[in-house]
Amino acid sequence: MSNSVLYMSMSLDGFIAGPNDEVGNPAGDDFMRLHEWYGFQGTPPNTQGTGWGAHFMEEGHATGAVVAGRRSAEQAGHWGGNHHGVPIFVVSRNPPGRDVEKYPLVTYVNDGVASAMTQAKAAANGKDVMMHGGTLAQAALQAGVLDELQIHVIPVLLGAGRRLFDVLPERIELEIVRVIDTPNATHIRYRVVRD
Amino acid sequence: MSNSVLYMSMSLDGFIAGPNDEVGNPAGDDFMRLHEWYGFQGTPPNTQGTGWGAHFMEEGHATGAVVAGRRSAEQAGHWGGNHHGVPIFVVSRNPPGRDVEKYPLVTYVNDGVASAMTQAKAAANGKDVMMHGGTLAQAALQAGVLDELQIHVIPVLLGAGRRLFDVLPERIELEIVRVIDTPNATHIRYRVVRD
Repeated sequence: MSNSVLYMSMSLDGFIAGPNDEVGNPAGDDFMRLHEWYGFQGTPPNTQGTGWGAHFMEEGHATGAVVAGRRSAEQAGHWGGNHHGVPIFVVSRNPPGRDVEKYPLVTYVNDGVASAMTQAKAAANGKDVMMHGGTLAQAALQAGVLDELQIHVIPVLLGAGRRLFDVLPERIELEIVRVIDTPNATHIRYRVVRD
Repeated sequence: MSNSVLYMSMSLDGFIAGPNDEVGNPAGDDFMRLHEWYGFQGTPPNTQGTGWGAHFMEEGHATGAVVAGRRSAEQAGHWGGNHHGVPIFVVSRNPPGRDVEKYPLVTYVNDGVASAMTQAKAAANGKDVMMHGGTLAQAALQAGVLDELQIHVIPVLLGAGRRLFDVLPERIELEIVRVIDTPNATHIRYRVVRD
């Protein structure tokens, strides 16, 4: 079965981007504080916390398609058209910029996240679908098309920035699938419980 | 050494109380969703997640004093004057209500959380000090008098309510002290890192 999974590093106070998150300063000030755990690579995963970046990199690269919000896609320059070689679906009401024409793996979807997810799951051929972007993730949660959340809870209070979870219209139950305890982050994987 | 510790159950989206949190509806709608893990008592702590309520109850009862915000204290009726038999310091700019006179263990402190913590640590006789209340905890963080946070991260998105962490004026680094992984909650204990 293909699952849609959001991978996100979040401070204990709920921020996924620091203040002044904009084009030219993607993910805002203090961006690296949330992602430095990822950089401890080059060794196998172990209890000292090194190696987990490589582990999650591998997990992410096993997905068969990407669904991204336009903001995330543009901030990342559409990953140069190549996000580990799989199809990329960008959700936007508006047509893509002209620079996107040169990326055959990038498809803009103008009728919402549920439609993008249907197309991505078909393209993923049974593999999971990776979701990019906090705003889109909330839309996907509300549309019922986000299956799992892999949250890396970082031991810091950023104090300000952009939150992963704004106000949602309803309560959503989660199930804890897996917890990986390291000094640099608490990696918790949740499954969304559907009624 | 005496540590000040905040014990708090928080949804993954950062809420410690549901909507409509007010006197008569303490902790708001959905209050029990954040605290039901606590009710699985009567058995020793185990990996199925039962028993941890008793564990944390015992841990909390080993503290030697309580510091609380006025809102929390009043919502709880000042614990009938007896919070596991230890002195209770309530931070408030205003004098206590007349009903507090009958509680010899309750002291109102009108010159701020740092002063209350100094008094509480002295009264605790080397034991830890338990902190009550989200607003007060943030004030204590900013005043540099909160040493540890025991956060019970509950697998639910409440969607609305009162957050534990509002905007803070500065970044605060934490150190992960202990993670207890159960199906009902991920219990993470943090130590505040001082420069």
